[in-house]
Amino acid sequence: MFLYPWYCGTKMLGMFCARAFSLAGCRTATRARSLHVFPGMTVAQIDEEVAKLLELKVKLGGDEGKHQFVLKTAKGTRDYNPKQMAIREKVFNTIISCFKRHGAETIDTPVFELKETLTGKYGEDSKLIYDLKDQGGELLSLRYDLTVPFARYLAMNKITNIKRYHIAKVYRRDNPAMTRGRYREFYQCDFDIAGQYDAMIPDAECLRIVHEILSELDLGDFRIKVNDRRILDGMFAVCGVPDDKFRTICSTVDKLDKMPWEEVKKEMVNEKGLSEEAADQIGEYVSMQGGKDLAERLLQDQKMSQSKQACAGLSDIKLLFSYLELFKVTDKVVFDLSLARGLDYYTGIIYEAVLTQAGVALVCTDAQNGAEESVSVGSVAGGGRYDGLVGMFDPKGRKVPCVGVSIGIERIFSIMEQKAEASAEKVRTTEVQIMVASAQKNLLEERLKLVSELWNAGIKAELMYKKNPKLLSQLQHCEETGIPLVAILGEQELKDGVVKLRVVATREEADISRADLIDEIRRRTSEV
Amino acid sequence: MFLYPWYCGTKMLGMFCARAFSLAGCRTATRARSLHVFPGMTVAQIDEEVAKLLELKVKLGGDEGKHQFVLKTAKGTRDYNPKQMAIREKVFNTIISCFKRHGAETIDTPVFELKETLTGKYGEDSKLIYDLKDQGGELLSLRYDLTVPFARYLAMNKITNIKRYHIAKVYRRDNPAMTRGRYREFYQCDFDIAGQYDAMIPDAECLRIVHEILSELDLGDFRIKVNDRRILDGMFAVCGVPDDKFRTICSTVDKLDKMPWEEVKKEMVNEKGLSEEAADQIGEYVSMQGGKDLAERLLQDQKMSQSKQACAGLSDIKLLFSYLELFKVTDKVVFDLSLARGLDYYTGIIYEAVLTQAGVALVCTDAQNGAEESVSVGSVAGGGRYDGLVGMFDPKGRKVPCVGVSIGIERIFSIMEQKAEASAEKVRTTEVQIMVASAQKNLLEERLKLVSELWNAGIKAELMYKKNPKLLSQLQHCEETGIPLVAILGEQELKDGVVKLRVVATREEADISRADLIDEIRRRTSEV
Repeated sequence: MFLYPWYCGTKMLGMFCARAFSLAGCRTATRARSLHVFPGMTVAQIDEEVAKLLELKVKLGGDEGKHQFVLKTAKGTRDYNPKQMAIREKVFNTIISCFKRHGAETIDTPVFELKETLTGKYGEDSKLIYDLKDQGGELLSLRYDLTVPFARYLAMNKITNIKRYHIAKVYRRDNPAMTRGRYREFYQCDFDIAGQYDAMIPDAECLRIVHEILSELDLGDFRIKVNDRRILDGMFAVCGVPDDKFRTICSTVDKLDKMPWEEVKKEMVNEKGLSEEAADQIGEYVSMQGGKDLAERLLQDQKMSQSKQACAGLSDIKLLFSYLELFKVTDKVVFDLSLARGLDYYTGIIYEAVLTQAGVALVCTDAQNGAEESVSVGSVAGGGRYDGLVGMFDPKGRKVPCVGVSIGIERIFSIMEQKAEASAEKVRTTEVQIMVASAQKNLLEERLKLVSELWNAGIKAELMYKKNPKLLSQLQHCEETGIPLVAILGEQELKDGVVKLRVVATREEADISRADLIDEIRRRTSEV
Repeated sequence: MFLYPWYCGTKMLGMFCARAFSLAGCRTATRARSLHVFPGMTVAQIDEEVAKLLELKVKLGGDEGKHQFVLKTAKGTRDYNPKQMAIREKVFNTIISCFKRHGAETIDTPVFELKETLTGKYGEDSKLIYDLKDQGGELLSLRYDLTVPFARYLAMNKITNIKRYHIAKVYRRDNPAMTRGRYREFYQCDFDIAGQYDAMIPDAECLRIVHEILSELDLGDFRIKVNDRRILDGMFAVCGVPDDKFRTICSTVDKLDKMPWEEVKKEMVNEKGLSEEAADQIGEYVSMQGGKDLAERLLQDQKMSQSKQACAGLSDIKLLFSYLELFKVTDKVVFDLSLARGLDYYTGIIYEAVLTQAGVALVCTDAQNGAEESVSVGSVAGGGRYDGLVGMFDPKGRKVPCVGVSIGIERIFSIMEQKAEASAEKVRTTEVQIMVASAQKNLLEERLKLVSELWNAGIKAELMYKKNPKLLSQLQHCEETGIPLVAILGEQELKDGVVKLRVVATREEADISRADLIDEIRRRTSEV
């Protein structure tokens, strides 16, 4: 963020004050009024006032407003520079390759949906949805995730079977924490399987995909926590949580990865009005972690086994683990009863992947836990089964069972970026194979002709946009940007019908006939 | 768009009526009020009323509203299904390859910007900008193009030199004409060169890029029209247009590709108050088309040569054509004095590419022109030089000269889609190489093990998510989706340590040992 020096600074109030001031020159009335209402305003009033002033400013428009604005991107968003894009492309390629390896098609949906399409799908998180201004016509909102648009797409096109991936940006008016990779605009990479299939086979494939992607990206150790919405609900029931409190208690359980049990319990009892006894019983269950064995044990658990729902969930967890064994991914998967994903639409298996390596700079090391403890750096993937969502869009309520996973790659980008910065290797941001350079003056036309020939042959080539660039500056540009070869033209070379081909790294030079040039470039750059 | 049967239909009024009606069940007061105000309302009032009702409905929320909404995407937007995505991917690959061949880096910017960043950049088109609702905090708008965010990026990061491409969606609250490829959400593929360079070298490269892309996409014949903002302004000056009417007259000239001269003249004289004489003089100039020769002729033109500006533009056009000759693209480029791009920010060379082939279904054939005349199907690329835009963002007004081109690919998609539909060849939407199938029951575990081995080896493989799928349905799935190979497991194959490898197209089968399977799949699918 870049603030002009004549702005006084300190966030909202500073901006407000500066803006009021800068407008004062043209509209004294505005200034007087603004400063008048200044003391004792609430934040909301200030926001409103700021909005009014900004609007006024926009109306004033033109040159007088030109140099008054803050030169920045919207709160919680960022640009990607070419280096970041090179890293992002690499990450996307890994993820897309995996999705394609598993036979997924891809679709795309608009960045905004009718507001009502998103209504009632996200529980308490609905307040984070960005709405578009009512400019006449339909009421629109920016998509909050890719799952609800996917369900809308299935219902609208009456699709009952599809395996698709979708990589796109989603929008949440959350409190940004950009250093930790939390943004208001961020990418999701979703893979979902829709269709009526035999239990746990597609679910197991989703977990296998998370395992493949996190392994290939080489981000350090990770853990995939698995649970089931039905186990949670069954657990709540047998612990004595009233039916109408399942969702809100579930939201509280969901905070267990961010705060200790004691605080979670306090929220349950003090804020959500749960009995202390029920909370303690939940506390016992949510501390349990294990594998297939834990599912088997809980199926025998006197209390848990009273819930049909819980038993259905536990049997599926058992079956899931047997498939995961065949997929050879059980080393990273853990059945964790504390996992509770906040979104309303999940109906069965849920999961979340976290990076656990302590070495990563993102880690918030917790002194109390000691150095040995590996610390979670937060979720990098999550998903689950949502068998009811498509039915919410179908006029006849026809259900299409779905299971999917979403890779949250902003955090992955942050880690990859730090790795790239730490490593000595330079990230190239172009793929240029050769620079067409000249050793003498007045050779622009010859350079244009040659670069044109190279482009015709599909060679990635560039030239400097100067009539008479210095040879040294042409060579320097290659070294800076990692271009491996230079084709140097001079009077002599033109007479001889050759090009001087220079290898930037070794400074070797050789005369190559114009007829052989393209093959020679291909040979040398496929070597590299 | 999918309307439920109990909706009465006919657009806005129909929807309004249906909504009021469906709400009436729960809130009689609303119904009475809505129906009361119904007769004699203006469209704007209706819009407002609809918005109010929708908001009311959202507030009612929950289940009662669940099945009442229209299942559709927002006006002017669309989903891409897997087939469309496969075509889109192909088009993007061609375009990105070209941009990379010319040494471009890539960047990304957020989908929304501060509202004030976009203010005052688009002239009369500003009304088409989508604003976000004021939910507290900053006032935001969806980006209208990629050029203004690019300029903001350069100024914010103090970048004075870059060659970058950016492929992303932009948003315009325009009147959609989706059959002709005009959407409210659409992709732009932008390539821009920023920096202080010698005249017309980067400009020529931009035109070469348009030529390469349109040739490679094989969309039929095309024409690239070139003009210069300074020539237009100079022409307006020597024709006696008052200074303060340059921009608005320019907007009118811009309509020459959509309406005949007589109507354009009428707008100039009747709506914009230009003298008939001035209009007629403009009319003479804007009918001129040619190449370098026309530029030379106009430099000698008694009237035109009085304008310094026009002469500067004409000299640059001359120089540009000399570079275009070296790039071997003059066959498609025409200097056309009627070309006037509407956006405020252009300062020099401007250009626009149109497809001219009559064979394409999109063509609006004009009977009066006769069958021989090739007809424009509208612009598929456009751009120009904008030397002042970055300076508008820089606190000290420092300029960074820029030139760029934007490929408008929605129309290209439409054509490619029609071509794909017309051709017999099936578009594959996945890249799956092999299906892991079973010939008998109870082989799910063996299938899971084998597919897992294939994924480990990077083979694109899938299996049906059924415990005991029929062999026939497994084979049918391959034929439908174009999977070339099937690995069939049976009791006998398991005993023998082999897999029956079936070629879907020829139905040939061969037993392959498990040890050789992966190599054999690779060999066969690289052949294909």
